[in-house]
Amino acid sequence: MFNQVKNTKVYEQIVDQIKAMVEDGTLKKGDKLPTERVMAEDLGVSRASVREALRALEVVGLIESRQGAGNYIKENFGGLLSEPLAIMFMLQESNPLDIYELREVIELETVILATRKRSDEHLEKIKNILDELKENVDEDNNVVLDKEFHYTIAAASGNKLIIDVLEVLSQLIDKFIKVSRKNILSDAENKWDLLSLHEKLYEAIRDRNEVSAHAIMKDHFELIKRYIE
Amino acid sequence: MFNQVKNTKVYEQIVDQIKAMVEDGTLKKGDKLPTERVMAEDLGVSRASVREALRALEVVGLIESRQGAGNYIKENFGGLLSEPLAIMFMLQESNPLDIYELREVIELETVILATRKRSDEHLEKIKNILDELKENVDEDNNVVLDKEFHYTIAAASGNKLIIDVLEVLSQLIDKFIKVSRKNILSDAENKWDLLSLHEKLYEAIRDRNEVSAHAIMKDHFELIKRYIE
Repeated sequence: MFNQVKNTKVYEQIVDQIKAMVEDGTLKKGDKLPTERVMAEDLGVSRASVREALRALEVVGLIESRQGAGNYIKENFGGLLSEPLAIMFMLQESNPLDIYELREVIELETVILATRKRSDEHLEKIKNILDELKENVDEDNNVVLDKEFHYTIAAASGNKLIIDVLEVLSQLIDKFIKVSRKNILSDAENKWDLLSLHEKLYEAIRDRNEVSAHAIMKDHFELIKRYIE
Repeated sequence: MFNQVKNTKVYEQIVDQIKAMVEDGTLKKGDKLPTERVMAEDLGVSRASVREALRALEVVGLIESRQGAGNYIKENFGGLLSEPLAIMFMLQESNPLDIYELREVIELETVILATRKRSDEHLEKIKNILDELKENVDEDNNVVLDKEFHYTIAAASGNKLIIDVLEVLSQLIDKFIKVSRKNILSDAENKWDLLSLHEKLYEAIRDRNEVSAHAIMKDHFELIKRYIE
């Protein structure tokens, strides 16, 4: 006769309301949230409960609290979820190489999408990064450019979610893979092999050759895996 | 002369300490956390701060608070991150079809890993689910069995992280894709085509035929995409 009462906690209800406001477009990226006092009054709950909900959204990486200025929906979600994912990863006693393998899994098919969907602007950007990689001698900058090269390919796929997931994996790799990207990229032999693979990858994407792009990306990861293992 | 003072908030320090205890193995899956009172005393912070940190970890899906029994590290991470990811997904104004595309991207290469690494036990489990799918007439159960079929393939890849990510994508699909799995799976024509594809997929994995497994998985997603679009 009665509906079952859902045992929802106060902070969960607050998170749900914020979620609903995002869903209907009332709240957008970069928007300021009402003050904790106003939220507590509007929702008829304690300020402590509001604060719990806001801190939770902050840990998750969805909002940021600016000293003295209030709480804002984040503009970009770069660091999103990387802390909780790192903890989960440790709890599951996963193999750090799994992170690399998942990155490979995603990039192998993403480069096919990129080859199919890339615009001329994407292609030009990939070419520019490649040219910078060729000229660059700074090892730290090498790491930055290499990441940019791969992200631009992901961006060329047109799938934002793929970029997000690769970004999270990239952070997990930085945390858990002992052999640093810098070592891999700076090793004299790798350096030229990788540069040559990046060049071939650019050509395959330019020529819209999906089969070749996939095969070159595979070679690229084989090289990295030999180094890590 | 001085090191820069890191502007860390109290609840962040608490999360960091819990993370450190997970890292060194003091805390494991299913473990009970100390009471809020004990944590507040040990850490020299207010109980409100402890509660904020705990609620944050709860929203993220890393701990669960059991009524009257205290806080526990979760045993399994099924629902992990799906709420915050759903909010982020809406804020980014992503295309719901991106979720399906990422699922395809991951499963296309995962089935190759599964074909290479699967044990006899995995193969038998896939076969059993296939047999159940063939006999099953209940539409809801169809959805369950279809998910199980794909997860078992992911499990056969030996990469736990892939299973986690597919689980999260599956929840996003349930939230954002209007055409339900049930509709896709129950449509009389699809039903037989999908069953036939699942059977061929099983055979390719059994015969360790990577090329064929990849091609069949591709056909599988083409069929689903025609339906969704």
